[in-house]
Amino acid sequence: MSQSENGRSRREPCEIETSTRTDLRMQLPEIVDDILVTCHDEACFDHIEAESIPSRSAVINILKELRELLFPGYFSEQALDQANLRYEIGRLVDTIHRMLSEQIMASVRHDCRRYDQPCVECMELGLREASRFLKAVPEMRRVLGTDVRAAYQGDPAAVSYDEIVFSYPGIFAITIYRVAHQLYIQEIPVLPRMMMEYAHGVTGIDIHPGARIGESFFIDHGTGVVVGETTVIGRRVRLYQGVTLGALSLPREAVDELRVQKRHPTIEDDVIVYSGATILGGDTIIGARSVIGGNVWITDSVPPDTKVFLESPRLVYK
Amino acid sequence: MSQSENGRSRREPCEIETSTRTDLRMQLPEIVDDILVTCHDEACFDHIEAESIPSRSAVINILKELRELLFPGYFSEQALDQANLRYEIGRLVDTIHRMLSEQIMASVRHDCRRYDQPCVECMELGLREASRFLKAVPEMRRVLGTDVRAAYQGDPAAVSYDEIVFSYPGIFAITIYRVAHQLYIQEIPVLPRMMMEYAHGVTGIDIHPGARIGESFFIDHGTGVVVGETTVIGRRVRLYQGVTLGALSLPREAVDELRVQKRHPTIEDDVIVYSGATILGGDTIIGARSVIGGNVWITDSVPPDTKVFLESPRLVYK
Amino acid sequence: MSQSENGRSRREPCEIETSTRTDLRMQLPEIVDDILVTCHDEACFDHIEAESIPSRSAVINILKELRELLFPGYFSEQALDQANLRYEIGRLVDTIHRMLSEQIMASVRHDCRRYDQPCVECMELGLREASRFLKAVPEMRRVLGTDVRAAYQGDPAAVSYDEIVFSYPGIFAITIYRVAHQLYIQEIPVLPRMMMEYAHGVTGIDIHPGARIGESFFIDHGTGVVVGETTVIGRRVRLYQGVTLGALSLPREAVDELRVQKRHPTIEDDVIVYSGATILGGDTIIGARSVIGGNVWITDSVPPDTKVFLESPRLVYK
Repeated sequence: MSQSENGRSRREPCEIETSTRTDLRMQLPEIVDDILVTCHDEACFDHIEAESIPSRSAVINILKELRELLFPGYFSEQALDQANLRYEIGRLVDTIHRMLSEQIMASVRHDCRRYDQPCVECMELGLREASRFLKAVPEMRRVLGTDVRAAYQGDPAAVSYDEIVFSYPGIFAITIYRVAHQLYIQEIPVLPRMMMEYAHGVTGIDIHPGARIGESFFIDHGTGVVVGETTVIGRRVRLYQGVTLGALSLPREAVDELRVQKRHPTIEDDVIVYSGATILGGDTIIGARSVIGGNVWITDSVPPDTKVFLESPRLVYK
Repeated sequence: MSQSENGRSRREPCEIETSTRTDLRMQLPEIVDDILVTCHDEACFDHIEAESIPSRSAVINILKELRELLFPGYFSEQALDQANLRYEIGRLVDTIHRMLSEQIMASVRHDCRRYDQPCVECMELGLREASRFLKAVPEMRRVLGTDVRAAYQGDPAAVSYDEIVFSYPGIFAITIYRVAHQLYIQEIPVLPRMMMEYAHGVTGIDIHPGARIGESFFIDHGTGVVVGETTVIGRRVRLYQGVTLGALSLPREAVDELRVQKRHPTIEDDVIVYSGATILGGDTIIGARSVIGGNVWITDSVPPDTKVFLESPRLVYK
Repeated sequence: MSQSENGRSRREPCEIETSTRTDLRMQLPEIVDDILVTCHDEACFDHIEAESIPSRSAVINILKELRELLFPGYFSEQALDQANLRYEIGRLVDTIHRMLSEQIMASVRHDCRRYDQPCVECMELGLREASRFLKAVPEMRRVLGTDVRAAYQGDPAAVSYDEIVFSYPGIFAITIYRVAHQLYIQEIPVLPRMMMEYAHGVTGIDIHPGARIGESFFIDHGTGVVVGETTVIGRRVRLYQGVTLGALSLPREAVDELRVQKRHPTIEDDVIVYSGATILGGDTIIGARSVIGGNVWITDSVPPDTKVFLESPRLVYK
């Protein structure tokens, strides 16, 4: 270490007069005061005297435990066998119930507060809704099983189901979507969206928890995929990276009415949408078994059994 | 556990002769020597006998504290009220000033070193620039307030300002951009780019800290958005996922002159650019209130109040 | 704190009768039983009584140490100089050899198990393959040197090699690709794909470890880039964000034969592919020095020295 403590060491500071340092440090109180003033400024956003917020890190922990509950043995440090299976599942259910009921409570209270409503029995509500959620786990596992098989059938590069479960981002995003959508159905505020934004950050796949998506759903690669709030997707649908299922342009005035309408498309069974394709509008229906080519931009319905392509590109020779 | 410690336990190794193991391990010194030789090879990159580098983890911590300072109460574990507000803001300002001045110092020294310049008073410079940065926080908070409101107006799926502040990736990226751009204006090297690459990793939104972006800026979904170094964006502009504001193709020779020129487009007030659109070139100006359709590729200016679309796709019936 | 412990504190729960709480909690055993039943259901996926799985966190640690070994001094907390260089490189080689051999062993055993083969000398195999990998490090460093120089030549916004090495996502992804591809060549299962999915999560760049990629490779911005398993890329090739080098549509029946064929394109030397372009098919060859414009969709070969563009978009005036 001695050599690295010579003039070039990253620990050695340049000279500075103590007085100069003090002068500079003494500016801080004034800076604090300036910021405090703006804290009360209508133009800014703060969360003071406000109700509790669900904790992002708690939500991430819940999702980690849930993945292990939905795919037992894939993500635990400890090997599972018939001897310890019941204890491990029991531990997971208990932990998730405690953590989830707390975050549901926080979300509900935050929302009540926002509408200046009293928070009535929100702790009981938290416990009830957490139990209700856990009762839906077996069905979630079954549906996720169809999604994993769809990935294996859809991707020639897949070598095993195990590889898909523990490394495919599409399965990661769909797993969290199936969880968040269940909480969305239970009308839990805030939490479902936080879960999907976590999945979005990890995978680049942005699915709104409100979207309705059928069995055997496969997203390949996935980066840049966007699935809007009121999208309806049938069974055995396959999407590639960069696909947008979105809303049509909206005049700024109209936004508030739009919040309640169906603004996103309907994709029927067995449709394939290739990378970079964009399908917009609440009345747009892509008929069953149709194939939407890459990078196309669609705002009208497409009948069943149709293929839609871009014009072939222009070639220019140097 | 006993069962899991049987033949199938993940702890049980396969047999191997100690001598074989030793033989294999004894190859390591030779491997080390080979690598050491290449370490001095011109063709390779190393950072030996070099000046300190800003620490990525320190930069991430600074950004965490800054988010709390810019949106007080949203990201702290502890509830804020009028009683503890001053202490919390004071703690944040003090912590950020200490951490930021250290990283500014490291960045400046690293850069001086690169140009073989002596590092003069870089510690004082660090403290001064950190204070200068903190004095800009109130204005940053005001501008970020306009960005949050733009998100609420632009996205029918948004249910509350709170949801936007603590879960929208667009706001996360824009917050870090406003911070990094302030440091860019203060001519701090390295640090601004490190901050944006962190935001890029988290959100998939890649904004160069040198870009100039007006108030009420909204990026929806955001994955794949690229905003180049010399881009100029007006007020109330809205971008969707996969939008590129980039530079035109460049002959490899020309790269060095290009480093100083305006290479990226200008987007005037109230423009909307839909997903996957690409706008290239330093002379390209998108006029006020124009709408650029999804997946279009533009290298020429567009007058104000214009809509630009792709040809509608070809439909083929099976 | 006292104020924050009043009615608004995030710690204060709402009332709930202990009996109600107990009733709700007592539902858990039944929930556990329901989940246990489905655990044995063919339709679901679990990993019980199964062979060990490579640990994702261990893989991430290996990659952290490898980045430091491939670019000495860039990512270590401690400054490197000629005095401590040998010890640091020695420490890295030793640590990586231990960690990597263990994960190779886990991957191989997991795979043997999958095909119901006995695991023969997999520990020795782990040690041997880890040594073989480390012997390839000097060549990897040389090739990565060409990649860093290509980034500097290709990006006018780059201010220094240092900035590229420690902040460019393209270099991060290519570094992990060069590592994962070496393990792929050594026919290590599972591990290479896990490494690339980690890089995919961090950068949005999805390169299959099986792809063959020449020297001086540059990916700018990178989010949304997909490079398929059987892709072949020449020297001095440059890709931009959102580029797909993928496979053509496949009838669901045909998937299994396809697993062994070349399904992805060949990109010859000095080709540039702009953002959002998609090139598909195992017989598709993009000739040397050609330029593929943004957002184009190509399924046929392109001769050398050719430029390919989209039709220019339609302008509509309000």
